[in-house]
Amino acid sequence: MDIASVQSRLREFVEERDWAQYHSPKNLSMALAVEASELMEIFQWVGSEESRNVIEHPEELRKIEDEVADVFVYTLRIADVLGIDLEKAVWAKIEKNANKYPSEVEHRWSL
Amino acid sequence: MDIASVQSRLREFVEERDWAQYHSPKNLSMALAVEASELMEIFQWVGSEESRNVIEHPEELRKIEDEVADVFVYTLRIADVLGIDLEKAVWAKIEKNANKYPSEVEHRWSL
Amino acid sequence: MDIASVQSRLREFVEERDWAQYHSPKNLSMALAVEASELMEIFQWVGSEESRNVIEHPEELRKIEDEVADVFVYTLRIADVLGIDLEKAVWAKIEKNANKYPSEVEHRWSL
Amino acid sequence: MDIASVQSRLREFVEERDWAQYHSPKNLSMALAVEASELMEIFQWVGSEESRNVIEHPEELRKIEDEVADVFVYTLRIADVLGIDLEKAVWAKIEKNANKYPSEVEHRWSL
Repeated sequence: MDIASVQSRLREFVEERDWAQYHSPKNLSMALAVEASELMEIFQWVGSEESRNVIEHPEELRKIEDEVADVFVYTLRIADVLGIDLEKAVWAKIEKNANKYPSEVEHRWSL
Repeated sequence: MDIASVQSRLREFVEERDWAQYHSPKNLSMALAVEASELMEIFQWVGSEESRNVIEHPEELRKIEDEVADVFVYTLRIADVLGIDLEKAVWAKIEKNANKYPSEVEHRWSL
Repeated sequence: MDIASVQSRLREFVEERDWAQYHSPKNLSMALAVEASELMEIFQWVGSEESRNVIEHPEELRKIEDEVADVFVYTLRIADVLGIDLEKAVWAKIEKNANKYPSEVEHRWSL
Repeated sequence: MDIASVQSRLREFVEERDWAQYHSPKNLSMALAVEASELMEIFQWVGSEESRNVIEHPEELRKIEDEVADVFVYTLRIADVLGIDLEKAVWAKIEKNANKYPSEVEHRWSL
């Protein structure tokens, strides 16, 4: 995906509506959290394993696609207004996680 | 950015640690919301305009990069486990928003 | 407020609908986060100072009351299913915060 | 619990530190969402049923008590700054939910 061209389209979208005034880092981070939460709401009352079945529910899947796109849009916007190089950041993060959780050591989560 | 290759690296990362068991849609949506919230926490007590100054604070900016990368990683994972075409979803969403908020009509948010 | 009697009514409500199966600590924490996010959404695009004006908007205020009540309900439910003494926990927390932020020392948040 | 007296202590706490400037409805709603998310993080990678076991883990339980208290504190603060009668709001909400989900009709969530 050409992230820069999506970001450029989003910037244009925001300028056409004079919305740059609303797109501060603070507000964008709120909008991102709100969208992430709307995605989460879909899985609120179902079990973890059960949530995998969503793949067979076209209607829910469409809703999920919608929310994931919202999350993606705000993530790209935040990166854009703050001049963050997303590609560099994501690879750096993967390396950091690989060091934090070496694959030779077992990591399990349980209660 | 080659999203598919980041997703492929993440899939490998998860498999090497036997973490696919944890990466259900439900759990991933929670992890995404948690990371979005950690990003938001940075801006919790500052004004909306003031939050733009973060660009001059290298330390906070590094923290933000970290959280944005986490959000990005979980977004790519959710898209991957559910077979969502992120590029298609994001362009569809932009078009949907363009129809919802035509640029000819003023949209303002205030209280 | 008689918290115990609200919790008792909520327990009854849940039992009448056979919903205890859904009210695990994990699911309740998700529901709480979702409701907190719905409250936040109301203030998403307005300034921090501007958000104080909401007090003069009866319609938004009613929506806020609704979301605050949802947050409150899930907080009481979590405390109930986990046997947490809310009153004790809240006073302990206030004391902890008083020690963390002594009133003699200035604490400011800015960027 | 005497909610009004907790709110009065919190008001005093805020005034002693000159923090009323930060406690706008917008910022308080963010703080509430951040704390709700920190609570949720504890249950992120465990199953819904498994999360019930937390009751046997004193250390996690203490952390949960802490986060639940934070959520409770911010809920009381929001209600206070907006003049919301929490008791009235919560009983109204329970009645609303009782009408929305009549106990005679089965309501199930599944995927």
